[in-house]
Amino acid sequence: MSKEIPYKIYLEESEMPKQWYNVRADMKNKPAPLLNPGTHEPMTVEELSGVFCRELAEQELNDKDPYIDIPQEILDFYKMYRPSPLVRAYCLEKALGTPAKIYYKFEGNNTSGSHKLNSAIAQAYYAKKQGLKGVTTETGAGQWGTALSMACAYLGLDCKVYMVKVSYEQKPFRREVMRTYGADVTPSPSNTTNIGRKILEQFPGTTGSLGCAISEAVEVAVSSEGYRYVLGSVLSQVLLHQSVIGLETMAACDKYGIKPDTIIGCAGGGSNLGGLISPFMGRKLRGEADYEFIAVEPASCPSLTRGKYAYDFCDTGMVCPLAKMYTLGSGFIPSANHAGGLRYHGMSSVVSQLYDDKLITARSVEQTSVFEAAEQFARVEGILPAPESSHAIRVAIDEALKCKETGEEKTILFGLTGTGYFDMVAYQKYNDHEMSDYIPSDEEIAKSLANLPKF
Amino acid sequence: MSKEIPYKIYLEESEMPKQWYNVRADMKNKPAPLLNPGTHEPMTVEELSGVFCRELAEQELNDKDPYIDIPQEILDFYKMYRPSPLVRAYCLEKALGTPAKIYYKFEGNNTSGSHKLNSAIAQAYYAKKQGLKGVTTETGAGQWGTALSMACAYLGLDCKVYMVKVSYEQKPFRREVMRTYGADVTPSPSNTTNIGRKILEQFPGTTGSLGCAISEAVEVAVSSEGYRYVLGSVLSQVLLHQSVIGLETMAACDKYGIKPDTIIGCAGGGSNLGGLISPFMGRKLRGEADYEFIAVEPASCPSLTRGKYAYDFCDTGMVCPLAKMYTLGSGFIPSANHAGGLRYHGMSSVVSQLYDDKLITARSVEQTSVFEAAEQFARVEGILPAPESSHAIRVAIDEALKCKETGEEKTILFGLTGTGYFDMVAYQKYNDHEMSDYIPSDEEIAKSLANLPKF
Repeated sequence: MSKEIPYKIYLEESEMPKQWYNVRADMKNKPAPLLNPGTHEPMTVEELSGVFCRELAEQELNDKDPYIDIPQEILDFYKMYRPSPLVRAYCLEKALGTPAKIYYKFEGNNTSGSHKLNSAIAQAYYAKKQGLKGVTTETGAGQWGTALSMACAYLGLDCKVYMVKVSYEQKPFRREVMRTYGADVTPSPSNTTNIGRKILEQFPGTTGSLGCAISEAVEVAVSSEGYRYVLGSVLSQVLLHQSVIGLETMAACDKYGIKPDTIIGCAGGGSNLGGLISPFMGRKLRGEADYEFIAVEPASCPSLTRGKYAYDFCDTGMVCPLAKMYTLGSGFIPSANHAGGLRYHGMSSVVSQLYDDKLITARSVEQTSVFEAAEQFARVEGILPAPESSHAIRVAIDEALKCKETGEEKTILFGLTGTGYFDMVAYQKYNDHEMSDYIPSDEEIAKSLANLPKF
Repeated sequence: MSKEIPYKIYLEESEMPKQWYNVRADMKNKPAPLLNPGTHEPMTVEELSGVFCRELAEQELNDKDPYIDIPQEILDFYKMYRPSPLVRAYCLEKALGTPAKIYYKFEGNNTSGSHKLNSAIAQAYYAKKQGLKGVTTETGAGQWGTALSMACAYLGLDCKVYMVKVSYEQKPFRREVMRTYGADVTPSPSNTTNIGRKILEQFPGTTGSLGCAISEAVEVAVSSEGYRYVLGSVLSQVLLHQSVIGLETMAACDKYGIKPDTIIGCAGGGSNLGGLISPFMGRKLRGEADYEFIAVEPASCPSLTRGKYAYDFCDTGMVCPLAKMYTLGSGFIPSANHAGGLRYHGMSSVVSQLYDDKLITARSVEQTSVFEAAEQFARVEGILPAPESSHAIRVAIDEALKCKETGEEKTILFGLTGTGYFDMVAYQKYNDHEMSDYIPSDEEIAKSLANLPKF
């Protein structure tokens, strides 16, 4: 039964999810286990607990429980910026002249500017509960580092962020937001870690990479008393926390009788896509409904569409567990002309398995077409989107234009993960017609994949 | 009768205001009329229509009608980012240990980053309705220019923005947001106008001022076919449009039985303060309720607390009508160490008259204490506030701390006008302990006031 649908749907506090949904419980083919890089045996909670907080290690390995209670303290924090609105893109539909109905779940209405805060507060909470002094992490584009800084400031935890050097220099304002929240931000690679010093020695002029920043953050966590490492994407625990996006979306859809045909999300490590689609995927896996899911990745870093499904290192320093995932090889670094995030070489093992099982599809898009979509969206919908989110906008527009040709009245739903207020350097390049595209050659990808671990 | 109060109150679409409230209709002492700078006679709609759109000129002079219908097209646009939430600052209360209840109306959840969009869409709409090609304006900190760019992009109007040169250079990202929305942004003073050329000749190294940018924008509007000038603050029409803030706030308060004792707003030209307090002031003027209203201004630009209530020029070029207002003199420019907006020499004639009638009080605060409040607020409430808004936060905290001493359980309400994402240069200065305060001397103010027009 459908009620009159408001422009923006905000759930009531009482309708907000009280549990996260763990899609692994409903997957027939479970994601492959994390392996110990030394023994190649599946990692145990005990082993993972040296790097991650204990409860997060348990969540990481839990592929049985479909629902996990959200602690009250996290629910309280969620209330500060959630529920996020589910918005009907009336103006975009009108501008496109499409018969399709377009909805987006907007996660950018908080100071971190993205959905990353959903997992940051969860991870910080468990660290606090365990009595830790603080956490370490890496950040690329900066959303995750900002989110974690906010969560740590709220809980009174110390926060050490290794920020990929190129971002540290190009995004001084992101850095200042983190400092305002009391975080300690170091450009990576740095002289503060063994791995950082080693990389600087080998590649003196390097501007860093996510893989390298992860290695530094992990090294500091395992070698400092009272610290653990936390990560903003890729991990199954992160997808679990991010399921709050999909759960709210599904509750809003159910409340108003909205039935999405196609659900679209941008995918770097998979945190937003996984979180958005999880509960819908659960229905599909249980045979209760059907949806088309589309993962959108940059053509310059195409792990799903051109990578290999194999065990790989998660970081440059090879200190992390091995994960089976769609990967371009841990040494793959997207071309320097690539703007924004979504530059990780691998993909969440949950998303990878679902993709391998053909339960989701994937598409890669070039960045000038992404910024074209971003600008069109900004002008009619009034929100300046993050470059990452704009990958999903691109494909949502493409799908809506197909409907215009066919006359189909599809319902298209996409995740608008964040805002682009700290990405104006990229917008400026686009405005000045100085942005270009880059598609790695087959040889380039093959060369990177040749270094996958062999066993 | 009070219901359970949610953390954030969002009105239903059906509860959103359909009319603006014109506080002048309920004022016993009306604001003094705008005067023709040549004849010193009250401006007529006819005269104002050369500079402003016709309907806006009518609104400017209308001190009779208490309610004015909001056109449907504007209501549709409001739905894209309104209602804004009224938030209970539970975390701030807890951090302060105050028995006071603190609420804030948060206007920053839109890409312009502030409340300015409420009037931008109204002014752009009337320009479009009149069949104009475009509008011209000035912007200082950049919120108004961004808001107007968004409104013009939405309606397909041309938008020419004169941006105070120091902001243009220090805030390149604000400029890029405007460009992304298709606006033409020129640093002021510029060579594109007579007044700009004259000022550049007299003061070759000048970094500009709002008063000068206004003169340039007005010159372009009156000398270009199909253009009119629009302004983001000070004018009575702007306060009329901004009454949507107060109306939503009052509806939310009434719905949940919240009775504010003290209502606080930052005040530069007065648009936010006037909009927030208008409907509450209406009740006070009609004897239906009583509130304490506090206008907060920067100590470096203290028009209410140290200015003179007199007719003055609104712009440097003296091409605009004369307004009776609390003013520091049209030549007054706040010290270069002043961060953020609220740097206009005068104050809305509505706010000025209410202040002169002792219906509102005013306080000035120094910027380091403002940033201290901003940081404290950001860390516990999760929103990084604009420097302007943080003036109100400062006084809200001060009032809440007084309650802690006295044990009073006051209800304090303040306007959180926007976010500080484009103000990280100022935050960086604060983080690096490089921010200082400046209070103009009595001599400095007297010297500036000596140039008030004499008649």
